[in-house]
Amino acid sequence: MELHAIEIARPAADVNVIVGQAHFIKTVEDLYEAIVQAVPGVRFGVAFSEASGPCLIRHTGTEPALEAAAVAAAVAIAAGHVFVVMLGNAFPVNVLNQIKAVSEVCQVFCATANPLRVIVAEQDGARGVIGVLDGAAPRGVEGEADRAERHVMLRRFGYKQ
Amino acid sequence: MELHAIEIARPAADVNVIVGQAHFIKTVEDLYEAIVQAVPGVRFGVAFSEASGPCLIRHTGTEPALEAAAVAAAVAIAAGHVFVVMLGNAFPVNVLNQIKAVSEVCQVFCATANPLRVIVAEQDGARGVIGVLDGAAPRGVEGEADRAERHVMLRRFGYKQ
Amino acid sequence: MELHAIEIARPAADVNVIVGQAHFIKTVEDLYEAIVQAVPGVRFGVAFSEASGPCLIRHTGTEPALEAAAVAAAVAIAAGHVFVVMLGNAFPVNVLNQIKAVSEVCQVFCATANPLRVIVAEQDGARGVIGVLDGAAPRGVEGEADRAERHVMLRRFGYKQ
Amino acid sequence: MELHAIEIARPAADVNVIVGQAHFIKTVEDLYEAIVQAVPGVRFGVAFSEASGPCLIRHTGTEPALEAAAVAAAVAIAAGHVFVVMLGNAFPVNVLNQIKAVSEVCQVFCATANPLRVIVAEQDGARGVIGVLDGAAPRGVEGEADRAERHVMLRRFGYKQ
Amino acid sequence: MELHAIEIARPAADVNVIVGQAHFIKTVEDLYEAIVQAVPGVRFGVAFSEASGPCLIRHTGTEPALEAAAVAAAVAIAAGHVFVVMLGNAFPVNVLNQIKAVSEVCQVFCATANPLRVIVAEQDGARGVIGVLDGAAPRGVEGEADRAERHVMLRRFGYKQ
Amino acid sequence: MELHAIEIARPAADVNVIVGQAHFIKTVEDLYEAIVQAVPGVRFGVAFSEASGPCLIRHTGTEPALEAAAVAAAVAIAAGHVFVVMLGNAFPVNVLNQIKAVSEVCQVFCATANPLRVIVAEQDGARGVIGVLDGAAPRGVEGEADRAERHVMLRRFGYKQ
Repeated sequence: MELHAIEIARPAADVNVIVGQAHFIKTVEDLYEAIVQAVPGVRFGVAFSEASGPCLIRHTGTEPALEAAAVAAAVAIAAGHVFVVMLGNAFPVNVLNQIKAVSEVCQVFCATANPLRVIVAEQDGARGVIGVLDGAAPRGVEGEADRAERHVMLRRFGYKQ
Repeated sequence: MELHAIEIARPAADVNVIVGQAHFIKTVEDLYEAIVQAVPGVRFGVAFSEASGPCLIRHTGTEPALEAAAVAAAVAIAAGHVFVVMLGNAFPVNVLNQIKAVSEVCQVFCATANPLRVIVAEQDGARGVIGVLDGAAPRGVEGEADRAERHVMLRRFGYKQ
Repeated sequence: MELHAIEIARPAADVNVIVGQAHFIKTVEDLYEAIVQAVPGVRFGVAFSEASGPCLIRHTGTEPALEAAAVAAAVAIAAGHVFVVMLGNAFPVNVLNQIKAVSEVCQVFCATANPLRVIVAEQDGARGVIGVLDGAAPRGVEGEADRAERHVMLRRFGYKQ
Repeated sequence: MELHAIEIARPAADVNVIVGQAHFIKTVEDLYEAIVQAVPGVRFGVAFSEASGPCLIRHTGTEPALEAAAVAAAVAIAAGHVFVVMLGNAFPVNVLNQIKAVSEVCQVFCATANPLRVIVAEQDGARGVIGVLDGAAPRGVEGEADRAERHVMLRRFGYKQ
Repeated sequence: MELHAIEIARPAADVNVIVGQAHFIKTVEDLYEAIVQAVPGVRFGVAFSEASGPCLIRHTGTEPALEAAAVAAAVAIAAGHVFVVMLGNAFPVNVLNQIKAVSEVCQVFCATANPLRVIVAEQDGARGVIGVLDGAAPRGVEGEADRAERHVMLRRFGYKQ
Repeated sequence: MELHAIEIARPAADVNVIVGQAHFIKTVEDLYEAIVQAVPGVRFGVAFSEASGPCLIRHTGTEPALEAAAVAAAVAIAAGHVFVVMLGNAFPVNVLNQIKAVSEVCQVFCATANPLRVIVAEQDGARGVIGVLDGAAPRGVEGEADRAERHVMLRRFGYKQ
């Protein structure tokens, strides 16, 4: 078995990527509907790798550049039943629970705007995602001052009261 | 650490397999109840690998052949706290959200009727699932005609309007 | 790519560990709120590895020893966007669905009181969890007597009727 | 304000009725998709009372008689944003969580195969559901023998182990 | 149609009451399982009014006094398919999402430790809950000082950070 | 018992109102967090009627006019444990599932941009919501042409494919 670390290219630094495992080509329409109704005017792209029959990378979205980036990531990963979402003007917290609730979705590997490598196992031409390298490894442990700063920052962003 | 690709045998070509990670032997009863109430008259089998004490593969179901196939898959995978569901006359979309909502279930690795290999890591006799090879890798990108055909097909199946 | 099996130390034999993948430092507050309202008087610790900027292991909890153990596990795993929960006087079934529903959580790798090794892939300093070795591999298949005993045990514990 | 008790006619004694409050005409398509993927081959009808613009009772389904019965119930209730589902070869437990998870659904008033009257408040031509009379009022309290019989019956039906 | 306001008696001032609408006698076992696994050692009682056949108030729980109080409330309400939960050493936030997720549950009318009257409509012997009088009506609007006090109080209770 | 139909004033014609039943003053912070993270830059107001102790209408939001409108609606309804959300630049489908998942929320009565009257029962000074008059009653049944138009419209809005 070979292991590959596939670098995922994003069209802009603030684009978030979500990668997961699903089944059945209805996934691509159900992900579209889940995301489009999560955020008014959301710009995104979705790709899903069909794993039987014609084995096409199915895709949709509301913005061509993001749809193309999702397709390119799916081409690079090249693993059966894997999906990729590229999110423009929205954040993973806006859509992740909706994606997890899609009835074809098995699991979500990651959701990130960090540099991302997807780890793919390959044997006899079949490929599968086994994990991700999401951003950098930790460099220290939060101290009291860091904790206070985090607390303030989440409230300045308006997420917490 | 060794990596194994375990081929999962299904009793018939249209049987779907769901593999996941859970904890605690109550899993086997809770999966049974979640699936049996999802679809009237559903035929299925469940196996779950207890990971402490007697370390038995716990199992249940409504059809002996599917229950035996789930047990055989769990024997082949041989990884602590992993469960396998074999679904006869139902599809993963009918049961997957119910399985994800079972309170012992950590994650679902895959749901598929494709040829399936489960990737297992092993060290000092302990084993764990790290991913799956689910069907074939993609062979191309959906074009306009493919997209139109998919759209029609999902509506011919009655899934979409 | 290197693979490591990281042994997770727990402060006591009956402490349960939950390991998962999330994104964004709000995770640490949201996990705190999800767990603290699940069980009255719950004792636990949470750690989350920020994967950009200062890359600190963020942490919180209601009991210092469990918080320290969660931090120590996150230090040992050292993988971006991974979280660890150490649970004292509660069980995974009490909190797991609430954790899965947190909007930053991508997936949960395991929930266990067994000896646990987390499998970590590393490349060029970035690290990611690819799976777990959760307890022991199965040693046999449940027979009729085992099944009856399990049935009785779950009812003696009061979980089932 | 006037209160009416609207008797709901079902095309057969074993048809189950679900009545709820939603918003927006997308409800009718989303309910269709939620139910059709819950149970393979499910026969049902849905009606939803649009409450602005053309104010039409929107409807769909997989069986004309059940769709007509859902429309007739919506005509009789005549309350803005109320929906009615008539279920043929399936039970409320097979679809209720999926219906509650539809993003337009506010609440579900009832799910029943009993004789059903829906209580409607009316003022100046606008109408709203305030409750239901679902089957008969209780006639006694379960004793030990009744409890044992219930326990056996749920297991004979296969719902519990 | 008659409207009644049914006063609900609780065995102690700190007991919380949850009242809802469900269907099918499996409700009583499913509510038991949902609650018992939410909080370790939880003390509670459940009653559910069967609305066809023998029309018995089905009941279960972990503490006789709370089970008796739930039955007494169901007797007083006397409405088909209504359930009552009396919670001892736990709070509604610990169990409410689990109750809402039970597949027989249609809706939850209230969850409260306040004085509670349940409003019941009656016609020709059939009865249904149409609402609740839960505690006292508001007496003013929160000002800046009240808001600050609330903020502090929720954090003193440990619910928020 | 008296029944009142309370007209709900909205600050603009496109503001959506959501009314529901919850418990405990943490509701106001949890609704805030659920909504603020649903849609980037969302403008809204929340009010919740505390039903014991000081019995204040607790409130928060991201836009003063919408917060004031939510408070005014709560003052007019004046019923214990009822909450009101006024949504500016977002739609109920963007936030409703998140609101239903808040652990203090019992039920949601309605979500609408139509003229809305909330029906309130009152006895001895205590008040409770028993239903809503949401928009207009239906005036006809959708025919084939209406159905085709609806199908097109939902796709023109981008909600469906």
